[in-house]
Amino acid sequence: MDTLTTLTKRWRSEQLMLPIWWEEGNLYLLDQRAFPFKKEVIHVSSLGILESAIRTMQIRGSGAIGLCGAYGLYLASRDEECTLSSLSEVAQVLISTRPTAINLSKTIHEILKFCEKSDLSLQEAIEQIVVIVLERQLTFERTLGAYGASLIDDGDSVLTHCHSGAYAGSGYGGRALSVIRAAWDMGKKIHVYVSETRPYLQGARITAFELGQLGIPCTLITDSSAAFLMQQGKIQKIVVGSDRVAGNGDLVNKIGTYMHALSANYHGIPFYTATSSHTIDFTLQDGLGCPIEYRDANEVKQIRGVPIALDETKAIYPSFDITPNVLIHGIITEKGVILAPYTKNLQVLKQEN
Amino acid sequence: MDTLTTLTKRWRSEQLMLPIWWEEGNLYLLDQRAFPFKKEVIHVSSLGILESAIRTMQIRGSGAIGLCGAYGLYLASRDEECTLSSLSEVAQVLISTRPTAINLSKTIHEILKFCEKSDLSLQEAIEQIVVIVLERQLTFERTLGAYGASLIDDGDSVLTHCHSGAYAGSGYGGRALSVIRAAWDMGKKIHVYVSETRPYLQGARITAFELGQLGIPCTLITDSSAAFLMQQGKIQKIVVGSDRVAGNGDLVNKIGTYMHALSANYHGIPFYTATSSHTIDFTLQDGLGCPIEYRDANEVKQIRGVPIALDETKAIYPSFDITPNVLIHGIITEKGVILAPYTKNLQVLKQEN
Repeated sequence: MDTLTTLTKRWRSEQLMLPIWWEEGNLYLLDQRAFPFKKEVIHVSSLGILESAIRTMQIRGSGAIGLCGAYGLYLASRDEECTLSSLSEVAQVLISTRPTAINLSKTIHEILKFCEKSDLSLQEAIEQIVVIVLERQLTFERTLGAYGASLIDDGDSVLTHCHSGAYAGSGYGGRALSVIRAAWDMGKKIHVYVSETRPYLQGARITAFELGQLGIPCTLITDSSAAFLMQQGKIQKIVVGSDRVAGNGDLVNKIGTYMHALSANYHGIPFYTATSSHTIDFTLQDGLGCPIEYRDANEVKQIRGVPIALDETKAIYPSFDITPNVLIHGIITEKGVILAPYTKNLQVLKQEN
Repeated sequence: MDTLTTLTKRWRSEQLMLPIWWEEGNLYLLDQRAFPFKKEVIHVSSLGILESAIRTMQIRGSGAIGLCGAYGLYLASRDEECTLSSLSEVAQVLISTRPTAINLSKTIHEILKFCEKSDLSLQEAIEQIVVIVLERQLTFERTLGAYGASLIDDGDSVLTHCHSGAYAGSGYGGRALSVIRAAWDMGKKIHVYVSETRPYLQGARITAFELGQLGIPCTLITDSSAAFLMQQGKIQKIVVGSDRVAGNGDLVNKIGTYMHALSANYHGIPFYTATSSHTIDFTLQDGLGCPIEYRDANEVKQIRGVPIALDETKAIYPSFDITPNVLIHGIITEKGVILAPYTKNLQVLKQEN
């Protein structure tokens, strides 16, 4: 079995793009805020640096945030005085950095439980379970990718929105980009339209960069161009990630997702979301019941620090939107592609969880 | 009758926002490129400066460009050696600055024809007809606004896209914003959502500024937020301008218009375009036959000079899109609001032209 050090080496050799990694006895993460204009690697020499990185969005994406929890506990365990009890305190602090990230708290609790029951020393136990968690995240992405790739045809142009890729996961392709990467790796000659994703421009900055690294042909467009390209017959499939999926299949995702789904619906273009079976929120009956967070409106009024409107202009920034299940052709998970009717068919994932 | 000097004074007193004006014996125009961050007034001391201003988009919008043609001829006529024949040469140069701008060539030909037939001196004749052209443009905007305002209800939130306002016309409200201004002036308590209009951000920069000047409450949003706001019941009407309207009512307008129309259609929200009867292109049977210009992709890859993607990223910038007539609830003109079926009902404008 790999140690964390050998795992990092092996993953790099498999062309993974790692958001966070262990190398030569140190933890590092990529600062995604100014990426790819500044490729700043942060040496995570203390838990405080990791907490701050999560809070300030230097690292983001549910998969990657889960890995932060795992690496955080591992880092804490390297202190010779670390005990299960002090680890529990570290766990609470880590969870508090992003209380709504289910994946973070689930991962942390799983690791604590494993350590409690293990016969190994605390440090050995943690390294073992962290390697397992990392491998599982990668397997998740590859499996989801393989299921999703079956929906993509040779020659397709696929639209994706925001960033649901390697740096949001373990390094393979996160959610949406795992589907695209798997299709490409199967030899399907595809092309990707990347919508820039205002206001934070994750599409322009990160998705376009990752596709470029993989050599997958892609074209950047403004969010407002997608409907026109669909009308012109230039887009065959849409694959996006997911922040939350309700029990009825409604999708809560980055602002702009709904607009693409509406355009796809009008043009008869299949619209898919790639998600984890663990992201299905069965406590949420439908998406319209989901409160949508309004973020700092200054994000709308400026772009990378440059103002695009006068100071006195009022702006709003709803950060997510809701795509009703009727607009979704399939929910791609690591357990397979779930089709409508979702309220019934998503139950399979509930029973297995 | 006004002289050009008295007309400018009167218009300013009527809270018009002039894109180009005659003042104290000089011609001036507002540089709209860096507006409103830099409010740069250009002294148009020669025809060359005017031509360059049109070519480099320092001034834009079909109404305003028409007025450039009128003012350009007036400027030329102030040369003591100016004759009808030299004026014709100036006319050709002016028309060549924007060959597709019907309004520019129509205005210029009308002025030349008037001068040919007039008993006045060339300079007197030109001033008279230029004042007539300016007054007519303002009357056009006010009349169109009054017709359109009847479609807006007290308490409505109206979405508009791009900039179809005062600085694109004579100074009242151009096309779309004439409707909004007229409704506001009638005492209707409205609110306007301004979509920023990537890549060139005319909404964020100019539309939001004009509404602010008039004290009309408005909120800036990313282009991708409109569908979400419609879903939430926050938008009651959509009014946009028009670059071209086909004989069947299909609308060619700034990229993003089609996306808004699709969302409006799904939510049952009325979608209107404000246009001039002269903008209806009866030679264009339907909009889908209209070639769409792709502009410099660097506009997508940067915002006000700041890169948002890496240099090596490929991008495209379709500058307009096509909204089919079935998505349009009414075409607002200075002759009234035209309803479907458009191929038949637009004929009224053809006969009157």
